Amino acid sequence: MTWDVFNIMGIAAFAISGAIVAMEEKYDILGALVLGFVTAFGGGIIRNLLIGLPVHMLWKQEALITTALIAILLAYVSPDRWINNYKKWIDFFDAIGLSAFSIQGALYAVQAHHPLIAVIAATVLTGIGGGIIRDVLAGRKPLVFRGEIYAIWAMVIGLLIGLKVVHQGWELYALFVAIVVLRTMSFYFGWHLPLRVLAEDKSQTTNIPAKG
Amino acid sequence: MTWDVFNIMGIAAFAISGAIVAMEEKYDILGALVLGFVTAFGGGIIRNLLIGLPVHMLWKQEALITTALIAILLAYVSPDRWINNYKKWIDFFDAIGLSAFSIQGALYAVQAHHPLIAVIAATVLTGIGGGIIRDVLAGRKPLVFRGEIYAIWAMVIGLLIGLKVVHQGWELYALFVAIVVLRTMSFYFGWHLPLRVLAEDKSQTTNIPAKG
Amino acid sequence: MTWDVFNIMGIAAFAISGAIVAMEEKYDILGALVLGFVTAFGGGIIRNLLIGLPVHMLWKQEALITTALIAILLAYVSPDRWINNYKKWIDFFDAIGLSAFSIQGALYAVQAHHPLIAVIAATVLTGIGGGIIRDVLAGRKPLVFRGEIYAIWAMVIGLLIGLKVVHQGWELYALFVAIVVLRTMSFYFGWHLPLRVLAEDKSQTTNIPAKG
Repeated sequence: MTWDVFNIMGIAAFAISGAIVAMEEKYDILGALVLGFVTAFGGGIIRNLLIGLPVHMLWKQEALITTALIAILLAYVSPDRWINNYKKWIDFFDAIGLSAFSIQGALYAVQAHHPLIAVIAATVLTGIGGGIIRDVLAGRKPLVFRGEIYAIWAMVIGLLIGLKVVHQGWELYALFVAIVVLRTMSFYFGWHLPLRVLAEDKSQTTNIPAKG
Repeated sequence: MTWDVFNIMGIAAFAISGAIVAMEEKYDILGALVLGFVTAFGGGIIRNLLIGLPVHMLWKQEALITTALIAILLAYVSPDRWINNYKKWIDFFDAIGLSAFSIQGALYAVQAHHPLIAVIAATVLTGIGGGIIRDVLAGRKPLVFRGEIYAIWAMVIGLLIGLKVVHQGWELYALFVAIVVLRTMSFYFGWHLPLRVLAEDKSQTTNIPAKG
Repeated sequence: MTWDVFNIMGIAAFAISGAIVAMEEKYDILGALVLGFVTAFGGGIIRNLLIGLPVHMLWKQEALITTALIAILLAYVSPDRWINNYKKWIDFFDAIGLSAFSIQGALYAVQAHHPLIAVIAATVLTGIGGGIIRDVLAGRKPLVFRGEIYAIWAMVIGLLIGLKVVHQGWELYALFVAIVVLRTMSFYFGWHLPLRVLAEDKSQTTNIPAKG
């Protein structure tokens, strides 16, 4: 029940982020619907595909689909200043979604008796897969590869659940809260993963204005 | 039998549109083959994946695969002015393909006993999925999110078949003709879906020349 | 056993090429891991999907996954001049990967009793699918559609194995060596596929500086 609430908050955040990207790209309402849905459900679809669960399990989640639909349509008709307001909340809701979906993805992969590397991949892809497809459909480079620390928290979840360090009910809740806090701190303090830049690119950086 | 003819016209139109995009991007003959095939069959592949049909059903459609192959190779060797000629016909053939494939997608989803939202999604993706992959592989923003009304007709098909308003033989033919006419009217009269533009983007529009 | 060695060399080459593209795009270590993995395993995933093999077979290949992981991390911490050094070797290792993976893809498709066109498509996609996803995730137009002859060698493998011209052990080795040599010659001598350019694009080429 509690997880259902987290899932709904997460799906709403993911769907709205898709709709906002669609509006930024001047896509029509169809574009907002497609980008909203792939952001919300794309990660779960890729995960199911990779760990051997039926992809059409998706359609059983009627509450989540309805949530996504309402969230996208509301975002599409909201005044500009509301959208700027959403953006503040989205980061927090998104942290809840990342944490809830990643824990769910890790549990599915463990139940399917996959090796640790598959558990970690399934966990990370559940968390970041939707955003990657959203950015590709918007003609952008995926933000998750260049933004603040995000996927590393999904990796931590995959590692702890994959190694069975965490597997009971209250442990999962504690992990959930810890990851929401850590993810929120990452964007609040602007934490980044180590970044390797090739020599040619360094020179480019000084000559060419940053793009896209 | 009649549907086979519609399918062949639609597949040819989708395949040629992929080949033309490949030529516009200066891709080689391999690029034309890949883009032609994904445009023609990509929508059906995504639909099968999402509603739980085996993706390799694709290979049973030998007549359609042969049609696509011939259409792509013909397009690739046609003189420039023939290609400009094709472009006029493609919109009409494409309307036939959209209508025929969407009806087929809706019927598959209904047979698989999926909820209405899944029927609509399957219908729309059968119609627009191939063009989206084509545009992504060409490094473009998907045209369907910004062009004239297109996917809405697939939605109408999904809704009418999903709600079983239309399910008999002659009703399907009438729906097919109606959607071909409506789609043709959309591009003839330049009908667009409502478009929401964010404030920041409005200012950009005045400063930066339209691209892509 | 021998094929295992070829597969490991090929996976390492594909994974390193993904990591290098990620560094060129200024992606963080997560981006390098994702791009490295999709380059190495994306082709096999698409092939399995299209010919009806379970996608999660992927996780059984533990030696290859470990190889990819080590190769990506090594590439990410190597000094610039080592990376330039890798680039020379990568083309050769990549030819080994293309040849080994394509032969494997063709054999899988033949075992699944698919028609010739499916065997050829499975073979080509095993060879080029990973690189296409890599380029899309890097925001680039897929190199394989514009570079030197590459996929045609996979097509040759698909044709010869699909028509059962080649099916015994030593014949497969001979085909493997021939394709490695031919692929190496293609990039050494700069062989290209025939390229059709539309009239409008020719005029653009003279006015607009080359991009992307």
